[in-house]
Amino acid sequence: MERVTIYQVAEAAGVSVATVSRALNGGPVAPETRERVLAAVRRLGYRPDRLAQGLATGKSRTVGVVIPDATGPLYGRMQRGLADALAAAGFGYIATESRRDPGREEALLDEMLSRKVEALVLVGSGLAPEALKARFGRLPPVVLIEREGGEAGVPTFQIDNEGAAYRATRHLVEAGHRRIAHIRGLRRAGREREAGYRRALAEAGLAPGPVVDGDFTEAGGYRATRALLATGGFTAVFVANDRMALGVYRAAFERGLRIPGDLSVVGFDDLAFAAYLTPPLTTLKQPAHRLGFLAGEAVLALLGGRKPTGRVLPCGLKVRASVKHVEGGAV
Amino acid sequence: MERVTIYQVAEAAGVSVATVSRALNGGPVAPETRERVLAAVRRLGYRPDRLAQGLATGKSRTVGVVIPDATGPLYGRMQRGLADALAAAGFGYIATESRRDPGREEALLDEMLSRKVEALVLVGSGLAPEALKARFGRLPPVVLIEREGGEAGVPTFQIDNEGAAYRATRHLVEAGHRRIAHIRGLRRAGREREAGYRRALAEAGLAPGPVVDGDFTEAGGYRATRALLATGGFTAVFVANDRMALGVYRAAFERGLRIPGDLSVVGFDDLAFAAYLTPPLTTLKQPAHRLGFLAGEAVLALLGGRKPTGRVLPCGLKVRASVKHVEGGAV
Repeated sequence: MERVTIYQVAEAAGVSVATVSRALNGGPVAPETRERVLAAVRRLGYRPDRLAQGLATGKSRTVGVVIPDATGPLYGRMQRGLADALAAAGFGYIATESRRDPGREEALLDEMLSRKVEALVLVGSGLAPEALKARFGRLPPVVLIEREGGEAGVPTFQIDNEGAAYRATRHLVEAGHRRIAHIRGLRRAGREREAGYRRALAEAGLAPGPVVDGDFTEAGGYRATRALLATGGFTAVFVANDRMALGVYRAAFERGLRIPGDLSVVGFDDLAFAAYLTPPLTTLKQPAHRLGFLAGEAVLALLGGRKPTGRVLPCGLKVRASVKHVEGGAV
Repeated sequence: MERVTIYQVAEAAGVSVATVSRALNGGPVAPETRERVLAAVRRLGYRPDRLAQGLATGKSRTVGVVIPDATGPLYGRMQRGLADALAAAGFGYIATESRRDPGREEALLDEMLSRKVEALVLVGSGLAPEALKARFGRLPPVVLIEREGGEAGVPTFQIDNEGAAYRATRHLVEAGHRRIAHIRGLRRAGREREAGYRRALAEAGLAPGPVVDGDFTEAGGYRATRALLATGGFTAVFVANDRMALGVYRAAFERGLRIPGDLSVVGFDDLAFAAYLTPPLTTLKQPAHRLGFLAGEAVLALLGGRKPTGRVLPCGLKVRASVKHVEGGAV
């Protein structure tokens, strides 16, 4: 049987080839148009052979994505933003997770490249792009989100961790707090957030600390808070992410401390639970979908021969009810 | 330049071809062995061409995974379990999300099949396998997790929603509660959990209700609880997932109700935050990693010509502090 072509599908559905492509790739088409296209696809038994297309033309219309952690909701939102940007051009993506293991990440890149992905989006990559180029020779276009390594010379999309942390700490200073603790995060994000915290305090003429290490988990935030409470000397804490802020809430509750009456808390991420804690958590909103969307647009620009530049996005402060306004400074 | 083969890599690294394959695919090898293999790969410039292999032999050593929602932590844990099972055989996976849109899911399957994935794992699929077969003709082996459709005649891995909900409700009955409300979930999981709730009450000779609709989100749980509290007449609530239980906590707090003093709550999922709520939430633990792992083992069995069967896994009850033991029944 002769192979059914996309032109036959378009003719059968009474639409253009571009519309068939969009309909099959999740792009913007009216629901009834997509229905008509899918009906024609079913009737004719059409199947786009991407694998053969890839070998013949080098065009897989697929972007390979490596995320650090498939269980992280922010990475899911990034993927969705990326998919939304790519769909308009009839591109899809395939994703897998590195678990922050550089050896695994290298093996995954190998796999992605073998599948002739037309571009790579690396999220929180632990590999320096220079190392990648040395390894793989000629790479397809690369876009980074939340890079760990140094300046890469490729479009990089990230949030302004330092500026957001500055803003969060400034919010506590303006509420009258003079002794503001910090629970640190890991990796580049953790370092940048700590820097913003220190800048806000220095600018206000306040001494930093106490500062303790956290690991971005609920359990880590809980342990860090117990360590902080053992010494005391603070009325507020800026916590490097919302998951650790949950641990703060728990440890404070166990010690009979009220939030924000006895302890003010600001988190980072605005995960879905933040607005539903008691009290609702004041935190910084990560524009995760937008990061993915911009990365997707940059991929398409690169493939179109243009030279997109990266962006550093601000994070909005979501003021809720976990910060108390105090009079006259330190308690 | 002549193409470097896996045999040359094996010789250069002083290991077997199988070891090279495992090392490159995340399988079990000693760290120093993997280092040696990767060094040889770099030195020789070896790149396994999966795309060409796929066309020539039909073997991509890749499993295609479609999940409903990339932002759901349970689906991330399933992917990880699947990857852990597949890695032992040198298989990888590629994933993408359907967003519970059947049209999108069909298009994604089309893409996966065009990439010659050797098997498909469909999570929470909204498509009946019969419909898939009718569409695509000869399908590669399919394994389902959390199916929505009817019996499929393919290995299916799911949790015992009905039995777990029965156990949760039974826990409330045994604590002395006589008026137990329910906030319903969506889809098959929601229906099965409601059935377990009703069975436990019927068995105890108790009238069900009030029962209100939820949508598995924090906001839905919050709205449902406000509706429940407007009529009252219950001392406990079984909530169809943890995210909605957060909404219950919030609505109860706003009404000045203490948990569990005034209202006992049992959730479902045991998400990371559940143990850190105040009070820590009693809930059912979803064996998400194990579901993925078993699905991966079933994929390998199918590819080996065996006939694996599906499994229904129980969910353990995690007893924490959100249920009060009451004397003498209804308040």
